[in-house]
Amino acid sequence: MDSWVDGQPADTLSLKDRGLAYGDGLFETIAVRSGQPLLLDRHLTRLADGCARLAIAADFDQVRHELLVYAAAMGEGVLKLILTRGDGLRGYAPDPTASGRRILQGNPPAAYPVVHAEQGIRLFPCSTRLSKQPLLAGLKHLNRLEQVLARAEWQDSEHAEGLMLDQAGRVIEGVFSNVFVVRDGVLITPDLKRCGVAGVMRAEILFQAESLAIPTQIADISLEHLQWADEVFVCNSVYGVWPVRAYAALSWPVGPLTRKLQAIARALLDA
Amino acid sequence: MDSWVDGQPADTLSLKDRGLAYGDGLFETIAVRSGQPLLLDRHLTRLADGCARLAIAADFDQVRHELLVYAAAMGEGVLKLILTRGDGLRGYAPDPTASGRRILQGNPPAAYPVVHAEQGIRLFPCSTRLSKQPLLAGLKHLNRLEQVLARAEWQDSEHAEGLMLDQAGRVIEGVFSNVFVVRDGVLITPDLKRCGVAGVMRAEILFQAESLAIPTQIADISLEHLQWADEVFVCNSVYGVWPVRAYAALSWPVGPLTRKLQAIARALLDA
Repeated sequence: MDSWVDGQPADTLSLKDRGLAYGDGLFETIAVRSGQPLLLDRHLTRLADGCARLAIAADFDQVRHELLVYAAAMGEGVLKLILTRGDGLRGYAPDPTASGRRILQGNPPAAYPVVHAEQGIRLFPCSTRLSKQPLLAGLKHLNRLEQVLARAEWQDSEHAEGLMLDQAGRVIEGVFSNVFVVRDGVLITPDLKRCGVAGVMRAEILFQAESLAIPTQIADISLEHLQWADEVFVCNSVYGVWPVRAYAALSWPVGPLTRKLQAIARALLDA
Repeated sequence: MDSWVDGQPADTLSLKDRGLAYGDGLFETIAVRSGQPLLLDRHLTRLADGCARLAIAADFDQVRHELLVYAAAMGEGVLKLILTRGDGLRGYAPDPTASGRRILQGNPPAAYPVVHAEQGIRLFPCSTRLSKQPLLAGLKHLNRLEQVLARAEWQDSEHAEGLMLDQAGRVIEGVFSNVFVVRDGVLITPDLKRCGVAGVMRAEILFQAESLAIPTQIADISLEHLQWADEVFVCNSVYGVWPVRAYAALSWPVGPLTRKLQAIARALLDA
């Protein structure tokens, strides 16, 4: 499907856009089923949080409206929304009158091997460490060179995802996923106050677990903690949940809580 | 002057470009005088270093050729080169067959107030801290949200630049400049192994100082060190050298070594 820029079909962008110049913007990757953008409220909430923290002006009613119309036309697939600060003057100082530029791109449904979900995956141990930046932590912004470097560390198909640590060696996230650990019945996911992307599926899984009275915890997780984990899984808003079977010399079974949350995620994404 | 994309006049860019999607690229801001791109070899050296570290494929003979032709047509001004990884597939994994996309943008000469150079400037104390990322340190890459946030911290014209510290409180650089300190006749500039952009004018000033047998040092500089400084100045490849007169409660005279290096920089940029 044709891309849209500010509501109009387009396949190119102004060279003055600050998204290109500085990565000055945010994005959302949204699963679309039967013409519906899934987990839309969570995506829009995160986007609004990002816009507030970066002081990017956007009309969220318009964004929501365009996402609904575009998704309806797409039918099935993955919708990418990029929201930049718009065109720039020269230099880093933003034009105070600029308003955000909306870019919508439609892609076919993700074609991940079914075995990832069914049998679980192996995580590549990325040596690229995430830097600490509380001002940007949690946001899905366009400054993604750390993910580019991390994803370039492996080419084999044996590893479906890579695990990224921060500079202090804490477990933070996958390259394109969030990570959860289960220990003694408690569902734990890394604290993202220093770095990392606070994923929409991460938020949904925390919400669903709490609805089921499963104890949850947001905490710092070390590599040592991984050794004690009963279950490990990764998630995002496109593929749902993948059990993690192995990371370096560590291995885990695919556990019951992982399967329960995977079924919930699947139901949400098959809506 | 019209922009060029891959050697052709254009004012738009493919929406698939990874420069937009991830800030996956590098840039150079080059002063042009009398049709000549100044400090060209230093700009190309830094660009090549960045391409090697990010594994971006580029034909540097072609880049040099285009810069020379474009600058000749510009005459006077500031030339911005953006080199991205080119179009992307879906996801972070780079297309191994992609080659870098070259974007040239011409701007009129920078119009900074003459008093900045003549009388010196006041640095704004930015609260945005630079994150530690050795894999990207020194590069002029397109992930510049920290600079965007820092530059948005002040709007007054009293501060011509802002000073950025790293997370540990070390003095690193200006938002769009490098910083030098003079103490007991030694010219000191921050070590950029953890973060910061290794500016072309910084390299040139170190080279010129060494040619003049002025002792130089690349070292960690704390805010306490600033209190002991005899002279402080900032530099970049467009404006040359600005003496720094004040930062928060600290103040310095405009010193003789600053004036000497400023004259050398001016001679290079007035070439």
